[in-house]
Amino acid sequence: MAKRTVNVALIGYQFMGKAHSNAWRQAPRFFDLEWEPHLKVLCGRNREALEVAARKYGFEEIETDWTAVVERPDVDLVDVSAPGHLHAPISIAAAKAGKIVWCEKPLANTLNEAEAMVATVREAGVFHALFHNYRFCPAIQLAKRMIQEGALGDLRHFRAVYLQDWMSDPSTPMVWRLKKQYAGSGAHGDLNSHLIDLARFLVGEITEVSGVMKTFVRERPIAEGSQETDTVDVDDATAFLALFESGAMGTFEATRFALGRKNHNRIEINGSKGSIVFNLERMNELEYYDGSDPSDRTGFRLIQVTEPVHPFVSAWWPPGHIIGYEHTFVNLVADGLQRMAEGRNPSPNFEDGLACQRVLDAVERSAERKSWVSVQ
Amino acid sequence: MAKRTVNVALIGYQFMGKAHSNAWRQAPRFFDLEWEPHLKVLCGRNREALEVAARKYGFEEIETDWTAVVERPDVDLVDVSAPGHLHAPISIAAAKAGKIVWCEKPLANTLNEAEAMVATVREAGVFHALFHNYRFCPAIQLAKRMIQEGALGDLRHFRAVYLQDWMSDPSTPMVWRLKKQYAGSGAHGDLNSHLIDLARFLVGEITEVSGVMKTFVRERPIAEGSQETDTVDVDDATAFLALFESGAMGTFEATRFALGRKNHNRIEINGSKGSIVFNLERMNELEYYDGSDPSDRTGFRLIQVTEPVHPFVSAWWPPGHIIGYEHTFVNLVADGLQRMAEGRNPSPNFEDGLACQRVLDAVERSAERKSWVSVQ
Amino acid sequence: MAKRTVNVALIGYQFMGKAHSNAWRQAPRFFDLEWEPHLKVLCGRNREALEVAARKYGFEEIETDWTAVVERPDVDLVDVSAPGHLHAPISIAAAKAGKIVWCEKPLANTLNEAEAMVATVREAGVFHALFHNYRFCPAIQLAKRMIQEGALGDLRHFRAVYLQDWMSDPSTPMVWRLKKQYAGSGAHGDLNSHLIDLARFLVGEITEVSGVMKTFVRERPIAEGSQETDTVDVDDATAFLALFESGAMGTFEATRFALGRKNHNRIEINGSKGSIVFNLERMNELEYYDGSDPSDRTGFRLIQVTEPVHPFVSAWWPPGHIIGYEHTFVNLVADGLQRMAEGRNPSPNFEDGLACQRVLDAVERSAERKSWVSVQ
Amino acid sequence: MAKRTVNVALIGYQFMGKAHSNAWRQAPRFFDLEWEPHLKVLCGRNREALEVAARKYGFEEIETDWTAVVERPDVDLVDVSAPGHLHAPISIAAAKAGKIVWCEKPLANTLNEAEAMVATVREAGVFHALFHNYRFCPAIQLAKRMIQEGALGDLRHFRAVYLQDWMSDPSTPMVWRLKKQYAGSGAHGDLNSHLIDLARFLVGEITEVSGVMKTFVRERPIAEGSQETDTVDVDDATAFLALFESGAMGTFEATRFALGRKNHNRIEINGSKGSIVFNLERMNELEYYDGSDPSDRTGFRLIQVTEPVHPFVSAWWPPGHIIGYEHTFVNLVADGLQRMAEGRNPSPNFEDGLACQRVLDAVERSAERKSWVSVQ
Repeated sequence: MAKRTVNVALIGYQFMGKAHSNAWRQAPRFFDLEWEPHLKVLCGRNREALEVAARKYGFEEIETDWTAVVERPDVDLVDVSAPGHLHAPISIAAAKAGKIVWCEKPLANTLNEAEAMVATVREAGVFHALFHNYRFCPAIQLAKRMIQEGALGDLRHFRAVYLQDWMSDPSTPMVWRLKKQYAGSGAHGDLNSHLIDLARFLVGEITEVSGVMKTFVRERPIAEGSQETDTVDVDDATAFLALFESGAMGTFEATRFALGRKNHNRIEINGSKGSIVFNLERMNELEYYDGSDPSDRTGFRLIQVTEPVHPFVSAWWPPGHIIGYEHTFVNLVADGLQRMAEGRNPSPNFEDGLACQRVLDAVERSAERKSWVSVQ
Repeated sequence: MAKRTVNVALIGYQFMGKAHSNAWRQAPRFFDLEWEPHLKVLCGRNREALEVAARKYGFEEIETDWTAVVERPDVDLVDVSAPGHLHAPISIAAAKAGKIVWCEKPLANTLNEAEAMVATVREAGVFHALFHNYRFCPAIQLAKRMIQEGALGDLRHFRAVYLQDWMSDPSTPMVWRLKKQYAGSGAHGDLNSHLIDLARFLVGEITEVSGVMKTFVRERPIAEGSQETDTVDVDDATAFLALFESGAMGTFEATRFALGRKNHNRIEINGSKGSIVFNLERMNELEYYDGSDPSDRTGFRLIQVTEPVHPFVSAWWPPGHIIGYEHTFVNLVADGLQRMAEGRNPSPNFEDGLACQRVLDAVERSAERKSWVSVQ
Repeated sequence: MAKRTVNVALIGYQFMGKAHSNAWRQAPRFFDLEWEPHLKVLCGRNREALEVAARKYGFEEIETDWTAVVERPDVDLVDVSAPGHLHAPISIAAAKAGKIVWCEKPLANTLNEAEAMVATVREAGVFHALFHNYRFCPAIQLAKRMIQEGALGDLRHFRAVYLQDWMSDPSTPMVWRLKKQYAGSGAHGDLNSHLIDLARFLVGEITEVSGVMKTFVRERPIAEGSQETDTVDVDDATAFLALFESGAMGTFEATRFALGRKNHNRIEINGSKGSIVFNLERMNELEYYDGSDPSDRTGFRLIQVTEPVHPFVSAWWPPGHIIGYEHTFVNLVADGLQRMAEGRNPSPNFEDGLACQRVLDAVERSAERKSWVSVQ
Repeated sequence: MAKRTVNVALIGYQFMGKAHSNAWRQAPRFFDLEWEPHLKVLCGRNREALEVAARKYGFEEIETDWTAVVERPDVDLVDVSAPGHLHAPISIAAAKAGKIVWCEKPLANTLNEAEAMVATVREAGVFHALFHNYRFCPAIQLAKRMIQEGALGDLRHFRAVYLQDWMSDPSTPMVWRLKKQYAGSGAHGDLNSHLIDLARFLVGEITEVSGVMKTFVRERPIAEGSQETDTVDVDDATAFLALFESGAMGTFEATRFALGRKNHNRIEINGSKGSIVFNLERMNELEYYDGSDPSDRTGFRLIQVTEPVHPFVSAWWPPGHIIGYEHTFVNLVADGLQRMAEGRNPSPNFEDGLACQRVLDAVERSAERKSWVSVQ
C-alpha cells in the first residue's frame, strides 16, 4: 500500500508542543499507518529557544511567523498548540489556506470563537481534529466499548473531578493561564473541558447545568519572589451539576487548589447493569462492577487495560507493561491519521470542541445568574 | 467514684434498635463510665417480634405503647429509633415528661418538626443527643483534631459522596423509606444528612446551596414479585453545591443508585496546608497529605487510625486490629454519657439536628426553584 | 427449643481475656444459639486487677488459683487465655476434670506439649477448641467455600506474610513474648501459627519446609528507659518455604520488624482457575480473580464481604457496614457452641493445633540444620 | 559542546528489540546528550521480517549475520537483544572487535558464560552495559537515594515477588523461554534476575540462599492446538530465602503461574527508620513510611514520583502525568550514554550481571541439594 507523507507544521513548542511532536514522531514507529507524518516545521516567537526545540524534537525547519507557516505550500497539516487566544486566528487562517487543522483543546476561549472556527472548517471543507487526548487512554476506549455494548445498562450517574494543586500556594506567581484574555477561563476551561469531553464521549449530551466558580487567591506576584502583584481574573475552581439528555445526572468539579492532587482526573459512571471508575493517574487501569456477577462474589474489578484485546494496546507492550501520558497523544494521532487516510474526518474534532464550549459557556452563565441554565 | 445507673427505654427494634441496644450494652464493657446504662425497656408494636428482640438484645422488659413508655418513672432516658415521622412526637413527649432524649438521625422529617423539637428540649431543660454516629469514627475524630490544630490550614474544598445501590434494581419493592410521609425524603435525608453533619463538624456552617433531586424509578412493586405497584415520592439521588461561611466550597451527592457501592460515604477536604480523605467502608483509615513534607517525598499517607494515641482507640484493640460499624455507636454513647455525668449536654444534639435540617430544607427548595438558596 | 447454659471459666484477663470475654458475651446477642454461655468466673493472679476486669467484662465471680477453677463443678467450659507455657498444664488439668477446653493459639510452646494435650483430650473424651479466630473472618470463610466449590481450580501458590512492627525499635523493653520459656518462640509461634492455620484450612497439609529465623535485637532494657538489659532468646522474624501435599508451593514470613506494618496478615492463593487475596487490616474485603471472565474485562474484584449471602454476615449489619477484629472471636464462639449443641467437636480444635505445631517445629529444625525438613 | 554520534547495531528485533530501538531513538529527544545514538543497523535471521522491523523502528540498514555486524567498522556499539544462549557469543565477539557492548538481561544462561563475558570485556577494555531497566524507574532511583541518605536506617527486610500468569494455562504452547538450552532457566532467570538486581542495587550483596524450583506443567503442545507435545525443562516458579551481607533477610519469588498477575514486580524494604514499597504495575508511585512522623499521623505515603525533583522526571512531563514501561529503557540509555561521554562505564554493567548470575546459580544449586548454599 502506497504511503502518503503528511507535512506537519507545529505552532507552539512548550508543554503541548513537546507532547504533540512526540506523537507525530512516534505514531509511525508503533502503528501501521497509510499516512505518515513528517515533522516539517516548528513555529514559535523566540528564535533561539525554537532552534533548540526543533533540534530536540526532530523538526526539519523553524519559523517565527505563524501567518507565514499556514500559507506554506509544503505544509499539509497545521497543529495549533499555542495558548488559547491564538487557537481561533491560527485555525481559521490555516483552514482558509486549505490546510488540515489539528488544534489543542479547549477549542477556543469563547463560544463565539468556537462557532467561527467550526463555520470556517466546514466552509473550507478541510479535515479538522481536536486534541482531546484522554479519550485515547485504552481504558477510556474500553469503557466506551462496554457502554456501547450495553454492559452498563441505562446510565444514571456521571461523577467527575479533575483535581490539581499547582496554584494552591498563594506565593506561586502569575502565569498566562490565570488571565482571562489569554486563557478564557481558569480551571474551568483547562480541566472541566476534559471532563465534559469524556462525559459527552461516554454518556452523551448535557442539556442543563448549575455551576459555581471560585477564585481563592485574587492577587499573585508577577514573578517568583516579586513584591509586585497582578490580578487573577479567572476561576481557581469550578464545580457544576448537570443533567444529560439520556436522563443521567452528573457532577463535575475542576480545581487547582486540591492540595496533594497532581493530575487527578477521576470519573465514575453508574448504570443499571454495571459501573466503571477511571483515574488518569492510574490510566492503565479501569475499575468495573458487573451487576450480574454471582451475588456472593460481586465487586469492582481492577482491569489492567494492557492486554492485546484492549483498544490500542497491541501497538505497545505485553500485559502489565504500562504506557504513559504521552501515549494518549500517539494513539490519537495514529487514529486521526488513519481516519483521514480512509477519507473520514478525525474524531474528536472541532464539532466536539464547539459542543464542549457550549457547556463551558452555560456553566459560566449559570454561575453568574446563580440559577440553572440550558446548554444553548 | 459512685456510678449512676441510667435506665434506658429504646423505641424501635429494627436495624437501628439493634445498633443502639448494642451500644448501650457495650459502652460500659469498654469504657470507664460514671453513668452506666441499664437496658430497661424495649418498645415496639409487634409484641411477638418484640419479645424475641428484647431477649436477644438483653432488655429487662417490653412495651408496645410508646406513649406509656415516655411517662414511666423508672425510665431516665428515651432513645428514639423509630421511623422518621415518629421522631418529633416521641421526642417531644419524652422531653415534656422530663426525660433525657436521644434520637436517631435525621432529627426530623421537616424543618418545622425539627424546630419544635429543639424548642421543646430547650424549654424542658433536658439533655438531648442525636445519633450522628459517623462523627465517632476515630478517623473522623482525628481529622477534627488535625483541623482544629491547623494541620490543614485554611479549608478550600469539601467534597463528599454517599453512594449506595440497594434501590438500583427497579424490581426491588417499596419500603417506608421511599414514602415522603414516613421518611421525609429519600437519599437526601437518609444519606446527605450524614454528609452535612460531617461537613458542619469538620468545616463549619453552610450558607448557600444549589441542588438537584432525581427519582429514577417512580413505580415499584408493593412486595417482592407483586404486580401491584406504589409510587415513590422521594428522591433516589440528590446532589448539591454549597458555599461555607469560611469561604470553602463544597460538593455533596447522595444516591441509592450507584451500582456496586454499598456504603460508600467518602469525604475529601483540601486546605492550604494539607488534605484528608475518609471512606466509611475503610473507616479505620484516614488519608492525610501534609504539604510541608519534603518535596521529593510528599504523598497521601494511609494512617491506620488504630493506635492508642488516636481518639477512642485505647478502649478497644491493639494497632492494626480494626473496629467496625457498630463501634461508632458505642463511642457515641460512651461520650454522651460521660458528658452528661459532667453536667454537659451531649454533642451532637438536637441543635445540630436542626442546623442539618436547615441545609436539607434549603437544598429541597433550591431544587424546586432551580436556583441558589440561602440556608435560612 | 430448650436452651442450655454453659458456664465459662476464663483463665487470663489481658488482651486475649478481653477479646474472649467479649465473644462469650456477644455471641448470644447476635446469633440464635442452643447453648448459651454464661460468664461464670474470671481467673488471674492479681486479685485487684482481676476484680476490675471481672466487673468490666461482666463475670459473676473471680478466682486467683486456676487449679481450683478447673475442678469447680459449676464450671462447664475452661477457656485458656493465659501465656503460652500455661496452655498445656491448664488444658490437661481441665480435660482430666472432664471440662470442655477451649484454648488460645498457638496450642502449646513445644511439640511435646501439644502431643500431650491432644492425647489427654482424646482420652478424656471432652470437647476441645482452639481460638484460631482468623478462620472466622467472613472473607476467609468465603474463600474456603470458593476453594471447596472449585472456583480456584488446582492450587499452585500460597503466599503469606504476617508483618508487625512493635519490636522494631531497639529501645522497646523486654516482654514475656520475647522469652522462650514463656512464649516458646517469637514471631514464629505468635504469627506464623496464624498463617499456617490459614494455609491448612484453605490449601491443606504441608509436607516439607525450609526456614530461616532471625533475631535483630538481642538485648533489650528490662523496662522503659532502664539501663539494665535482658536477652531476647526468640526470633524477631522467621520466613520459610513450604511444599504442600497437594503439589502447591508456599512462602511464609512473620516479623515484628516490618516498620509501618501493624497487623498486616496478608495471604494470596493462585490456582489454575482463579486467585484470591486477603489482608487482615481490611478484613471485610476479599480480592478475587476469576480466570473465566471475558478476556477484555478480567481483573481482581474487590468483594466487600458484607452481604447477607456471605458466611456469618447476616448476624451482623447491612452491606458495606463493616465488622472488626473482635467479631472473628464472636463468630468462632457461636460456631463452636453450635457444633457442640449438635454433638460435634468445634473446629478448629486441638488436632489442628497439633498439626500446626508440627509445622512450626519442622521450621525450627530446618533453620538449625540449614536444610529442608519433613513435617513429622 | 561537540556532540559525538554513536552508531548502534541492534541484534534482535522482537520484544526487546522494539524496546531497545525505541530507547535509542527517544533518548536524544528528551535528554541533552553529548553522545547521540544513531540507529545504524538492525540484525536478525529472517530478512523479510527484519526489513519491516527496520523500517518501523527507524534503522538505516539491516543485516542477517551477527558475526558480520560485530566486525563492521561503522558500528560503535553492539546491543545484544537476542535470546539468552546468544548473549555470550555475540557479546564476546563484539568486545573482541573493540565494540562497546550493551546486553539484555540476564547477562548469560550460565555462570561460566557470565564469567567469560566479564573476563573478555575487561581484557578488551571496552565499555559494557546491562539492560536492567527497572533500576531506571524514577521511583526506584528515588528509593536508592533515600536509602543512601539513611531515610530507612538499617535495612532488616527485603521482600520481593515477581508474579506473572502467561504460562498458567497448560494448553499454552511451548516457547523458547521454556527450554533450558535457549533460556538457561525459566521464571528464575527471567524474573528473579530482576529482583536480584533490585536487591543488590538497594540493599547490597546476598551471601547465602535456600531455594525451591517448581515446574507445574511438564508437557506442552508444540503449537496452538497441536496434539504433539514437548517437555518443559525449566522452572515455572522459583522461590528463595536469602541473607544479605548487611544483616538483612530476604524473600524472593518468581512465577509464571500467579493467575491474574500480569507484571507484578513488587518489592518491600523495611528498615529501622522507614520502609518503602514499589510495584512495577504502578511504577510511577512509591510508598514510603517515615518512622519519625508524629505518632498520631504516621502511615505509608503514596508518593507520586512525577515531580521535577524526582530522578529522571524533569526530562518528561509535569506532575501526575505518568510515564510507562519503555521509559525505563530510555532513562537507562540516556544515563549510560552520558556516563560514557564522561569516560565512565555505564551502570549496571557486566559486573552486575555476573554478580546476579552468582546468586541465580547458588539458588539452583541449593534447590538441588535441598540446603542452604553460599553465593560463591
